[in-house]
Amino acid sequence: MAAEFEMGQLMIILSVLFILAISASAIFKRFGIPGLIGEILIGVFVANLVIGDWSLLGALDIVLPVPGVDDGNTYWNMLEVLAELGVVFLLFTVGLETKVKDLTSVGRTAMLVATLGVIIPFVLGYAVITLWDGNVYHAMFMGAAMVATSVGITAQVIKDMKVLNRPESRIIIAAAVIDDILGLIVLAVVAGMARTGSIDMFGLAEMIIVSVMFVIIVILFCSKGVPRIAGKIRRTAEGKNKKRSGVDIFVVALSVCLLLSALAAQMKLAMIVGAFLAGMIFADHAKEYGLEKKMGSVTAFLLPFFFISVGMRVDLSSLKEEFLLLAAVIIILAILSKYIGCGLGTMIGDRKKESSANIVGIGMIPRGEVGIIVAMIGIKIIADGGPVMSGDLFTIVVLMSVVTTIIAPFMLSRVFKKKYGNTQEDAASE
Amino acid sequence: MAAEFEMGQLMIILSVLFILAISASAIFKRFGIPGLIGEILIGVFVANLVIGDWSLLGALDIVLPVPGVDDGNTYWNMLEVLAELGVVFLLFTVGLETKVKDLTSVGRTAMLVATLGVIIPFVLGYAVITLWDGNVYHAMFMGAAMVATSVGITAQVIKDMKVLNRPESRIIIAAAVIDDILGLIVLAVVAGMARTGSIDMFGLAEMIIVSVMFVIIVILFCSKGVPRIAGKIRRTAEGKNKKRSGVDIFVVALSVCLLLSALAAQMKLAMIVGAFLAGMIFADHAKEYGLEKKMGSVTAFLLPFFFISVGMRVDLSSLKEEFLLLAAVIIILAILSKYIGCGLGTMIGDRKKESSANIVGIGMIPRGEVGIIVAMIGIKIIADGGPVMSGDLFTIVVLMSVVTTIIAPFMLSRVFKKKYGNTQEDAASE
Repeated sequence: MAAEFEMGQLMIILSVLFILAISASAIFKRFGIPGLIGEILIGVFVANLVIGDWSLLGALDIVLPVPGVDDGNTYWNMLEVLAELGVVFLLFTVGLETKVKDLTSVGRTAMLVATLGVIIPFVLGYAVITLWDGNVYHAMFMGAAMVATSVGITAQVIKDMKVLNRPESRIIIAAAVIDDILGLIVLAVVAGMARTGSIDMFGLAEMIIVSVMFVIIVILFCSKGVPRIAGKIRRTAEGKNKKRSGVDIFVVALSVCLLLSALAAQMKLAMIVGAFLAGMIFADHAKEYGLEKKMGSVTAFLLPFFFISVGMRVDLSSLKEEFLLLAAVIIILAILSKYIGCGLGTMIGDRKKESSANIVGIGMIPRGEVGIIVAMIGIKIIADGGPVMSGDLFTIVVLMSVVTTIIAPFMLSRVFKKKYGNTQEDAASE
Repeated sequence: MAAEFEMGQLMIILSVLFILAISASAIFKRFGIPGLIGEILIGVFVANLVIGDWSLLGALDIVLPVPGVDDGNTYWNMLEVLAELGVVFLLFTVGLETKVKDLTSVGRTAMLVATLGVIIPFVLGYAVITLWDGNVYHAMFMGAAMVATSVGITAQVIKDMKVLNRPESRIIIAAAVIDDILGLIVLAVVAGMARTGSIDMFGLAEMIIVSVMFVIIVILFCSKGVPRIAGKIRRTAEGKNKKRSGVDIFVVALSVCLLLSALAAQMKLAMIVGAFLAGMIFADHAKEYGLEKKMGSVTAFLLPFFFISVGMRVDLSSLKEEFLLLAAVIIILAILSKYIGCGLGTMIGDRKKESSANIVGIGMIPRGEVGIIVAMIGIKIIADGGPVMSGDLFTIVVLMSVVTTIIAPFMLSRVFKKKYGNTQEDAASE
């Protein structure tokens, strides 16, 4: 391939970023801080290190995307692909450790957590921007951008701390799936309003039905279809050659993960929702086939690219002084609104008071890349002679996403430790 | 990201190709044929399935590269990145299972195998094209394209059959490293001749010294530096928290693999040479830390993309009738010249007659992507008013690469089975 030389350059980029990420992670872990925070912060450092004319990104040939202008260069896109695969496999692994009844048992609470955790951030985001510049589209999109929780970061903390079976963790994960569907509905409504001035009720209904059906079908499939198919696969796998030949369960699991992630993306749901559901399909047999360990090796390679690329989105130089106040307000509201909304949901929903509203509230704070996607869509929609999301507001959304993403794991590991003690030993370590 | 929707499409591509590849692999294994042949053939099928106006590639939005015109679209490039990472990690794994003394013990033989295996294909390729169209540049580039062995395919067969410790396997692997350096020299010479009409002796000497030094330094580092550093890392890793904290050896190994691959690419060596050397650095501790198993999970995800993309390069429709004869001649010569050259090298070099010239000869046959890269470079060099590699010859090189790549594993698994019996049990299976 002519791409050989490019491939060489990409390899340099990957090795430099990978080494930076794991070094930062190792150093942070030493100080008892979750490694992923180190990986995100080193990403911020990489993206903003400029000495005179020299910048680290320039030296690495990476061009970051400029919202509304371009999507960055091929190296950035490839980095994103690896990052996205990493978080997809992470949520798949979380799915592997989640049984259907773990979710249904917290269903009511999760529904409340998700609903309040969507309404309150939206209303507050809408209100602040209305006060700020009075542009109703700006307000709607900021509200929508503040809605969606990205469960990837929280999932990593929950995995690291080995608290996946605690009630709070189950609520957070179930709520994140519901939250994603609600966020999708909010986005569809505001984008429809901005594009046509009205809501396409038929299209909206169709979208809701399709995405809810997708989740329900997979979950039903887990509880009914899987036991039957699993038996069949096993008979095939253990067939002929005595030792299992031909079909390798791990590879089958990877296929299902890729497929359901792709299907989720087709329905405009987050891919990680599909990946999580795919993991649940194999939850009953994950231990037996060592699926979690094997996935762990794959994510060990891919996930550092996810966390470092989250940090790399922060362009400190793009933050103008006159927007600092607004940025601070939005960030604080983004944190408080989720915390209060989801905490409230937990208190109301969990009648037995088994789970801590504090933990659930914190666990739902990180917005990750989902808010950025919403803002990106807003930049491309023109209404009343301007984009429904301005460049400055976009920068604020990115900052909001990254700040919520950075602080949440830090707080979350503390509250988990406080409630469940340090028995989760190597909490901050691998 | 605006790339969200693209990411969804990429996920569809990846899931479809992955599922096709592993299904083909499973079916072929059932019939006792190495799975990778199934994966390559399904790639040929994918690339050439056209029903009326409908083509599978079109449906998947993949645009394959047209030599000299473009490099394909982003989806293809991303597929290539995953493929390349797959083969890099495969060779890293082979390195993990190879100790320095395994290579030095076969050094003399490997040197002879590599040298004869470079000279004979070059001379024959040169001769045939000189007879065919008399263009000296065409002849030189065809010769150069026939030189380089791509050890990825052979490595997979050797791993599958668990014959990594047999003398033939060691010779093949050591010879492949030397072969890559020789191929680099041949390419530099012919490209220099074509570009300037003369050879830049100084540049050539520099290149030879740098690449040889790279290999020697890494190998020296393996035998001297590693034992000391390994002790240090272990003390760090097992430090403080009693359990190993902070530094994870697997992640360190991945970093070194990425880094040496990148360095190799910088020296215009194949990345897999760097990856292989990186593996050797960890060979003494691979078992202890379960590195091979962990790498196995990573390659289980990535390698199918490598093998299927090898097949996808075959564009059956581009083969013109008037070139069929030449194509057949080149393919046959490509097979025979490596077989004879390397077989001869083994016979002369291995005085104890421990190793089978037959096996080594067959193991060195596959050209993989290396020949294609050479031809691609030729297309971009203009001499005497035309490119030094014509489009038709390029198609033939691609065919030659793919055919040698497809037949070699088939033959290799047979001769290994014949010599070492079926004790390597699940030879054709995972």
